[in-house]
Amino acid sequence: VTVDVEALAVAVKNGDRRSIARAITLVESTRAEDVALAEALLVLLYPHTGRGLRLGVSGVPGAGKSTLIDVLGRHVIAAGHKLGVLAIDPSSQLSGGSVLGDRTRMTELSRAKEAFVRPSPSSGASGGLSLRTREALLVLEAGGHDVVIVETVGTGQAEVAVTELVDVLVVVLLAGAGDDVQGVKRGLLEHADVIAFNKADGANLPLVDAARDELTSLYAWMRRGEGPTVVALSAREDRGVLELWQLIEKRFRALSASGELEERRRGQRRAWFLRALQEALAARLASSDSARERLDALREAVEAGEVLPRLAARQLADAVR
Amino acid sequence: VTVDVEALAVAVKNGDRRSIARAITLVESTRAEDVALAEALLVLLYPHTGRGLRLGVSGVPGAGKSTLIDVLGRHVIAAGHKLGVLAIDPSSQLSGGSVLGDRTRMTELSRAKEAFVRPSPSSGASGGLSLRTREALLVLEAGGHDVVIVETVGTGQAEVAVTELVDVLVVVLLAGAGDDVQGVKRGLLEHADVIAFNKADGANLPLVDAARDELTSLYAWMRRGEGPTVVALSAREDRGVLELWQLIEKRFRALSASGELEERRRGQRRAWFLRALQEALAARLASSDSARERLDALREAVEAGEVLPRLAARQLADAVR
Repeated sequence: VTVDVEALAVAVKNGDRRSIARAITLVESTRAEDVALAEALLVLLYPHTGRGLRLGVSGVPGAGKSTLIDVLGRHVIAAGHKLGVLAIDPSSQLSGGSVLGDRTRMTELSRAKEAFVRPSPSSGASGGLSLRTREALLVLEAGGHDVVIVETVGTGQAEVAVTELVDVLVVVLLAGAGDDVQGVKRGLLEHADVIAFNKADGANLPLVDAARDELTSLYAWMRRGEGPTVVALSAREDRGVLELWQLIEKRFRALSASGELEERRRGQRRAWFLRALQEALAARLASSDSARERLDALREAVEAGEVLPRLAARQLADAVR
Repeated sequence: VTVDVEALAVAVKNGDRRSIARAITLVESTRAEDVALAEALLVLLYPHTGRGLRLGVSGVPGAGKSTLIDVLGRHVIAAGHKLGVLAIDPSSQLSGGSVLGDRTRMTELSRAKEAFVRPSPSSGASGGLSLRTREALLVLEAGGHDVVIVETVGTGQAEVAVTELVDVLVVVLLAGAGDDVQGVKRGLLEHADVIAFNKADGANLPLVDAARDELTSLYAWMRRGEGPTVVALSAREDRGVLELWQLIEKRFRALSASGELEERRRGQRRAWFLRALQEALAARLASSDSARERLDALREAVEAGEVLPRLAARQLADAVR
């Protein structure tokens, strides 16, 4: 299959849905010939990205993330935005998506022509966000989606990387699930702009109030003043979700106005660059089977304490040609 | 100056103080000829490391870290240990060490022959812990110091790296300083095994109790059960410091017994390896002036959003010869 990258870039920028899907598939591909094409495509699209709001929605399986995104997304569209969603791929082992629920995830959004819902490409080993997720986001932005939601499970180490990707982060917790964070990585909680207690209804409401108080004093203690906003909502009943969207928008505007948004994105780009550099160098190391085997063997020996890390690193670096 | 690396290694292992100092200086050196010698030395010393307790003591300037280490160190020595300390270099800009106080930091310890106090080499740009700190720790361990304390300021991003280095982490906070963590990185608080409120005396005591309650519920909320132990002490009056040492030892024994220590150290070695690999590859990139200039220019352009990170990374990786 030959790909006319320039034509594809134009079609993406025109918002053609099939082209956007195709571009993301290309970006996700690990085939050598696709990698070069993807790079060329992304170079063309890059100037047309970065003007929208990047929203992260994280939380453990069962917290109701997809229902929340489904309902939140309708409010986003109603406000006149074009919405892209990088959703957790329910077929991925690590997603924790329920098998029964898969077919009905974000049903409403999937039908709306102002929205583009795409299972997020998860990286191999780490199971978390990858550079590919970031590049899929760029494709969506170039395609005219001025709000992009990145859904992540908040449990794995790699998931904390969502903070390297989004402008505003909402962590979804389950109302009334008791006095622990239900497995959510603390690093995520720290970076949260909004903590949303979902399924806040009936008997759960007093529990939410208690948790909110606890969280509020927790964050007050941890840093002066500006902790995340804690909200209670019910995605299923569409209660508190519009308010959540208003909160997100307000936060985004404040970040833009203060210059903090650009500052943060500069740091994100630097982190992205360093990760990409690591990946590119690792790819060079791994380009021969013998080098890859050597890397694996050395890492194993280093972990076991048998080889000095500095020595192993120097030897490997010397092997890069 | 020629260095007989094998003789130096033997002298270090015999605990010769001047040789230990010389070895650390060699390890810290960035001169090309020293780098190769340091590697050879560390390869010889590495099998004689790793059997002791690695303790991190972090906290903002003014929390009384050095006084605490001075007093704690005497208890460590009294318990029959040989103690190494990698202290914050008071001459470093980022240390926040008070100019007046410099000469009197850890006076007692500095006089004890069972202790070796050394200003910690801080890395260039980040101002935090570097791979050199880790290697200085190895030299101290090879020199027979079965307890090594690494002192760090708990404020910078790089400081969180102390958790990649130590077995047990004590975060020192100031009693009665109010309901924020006084600038300590939250990542550090998360990894703390013990939170020690220093200068807990007189009017401060009730404040410590309140803060302890708040912290305890904070950690209970954040994870099931096993948050850090919160203690109140006065380093200046040597109150609660022996108890702190007993707590640290107990924690270390529990980590050893459960196998968690080895698990954690495996992860630390892996992280160390990856950092060393990054450094070694960067050194290759930077080995010519033109490559270094190119790296800096590309990073700047990437941060400004002008160049696609993936493109910049691939181009740089291609330039490695």
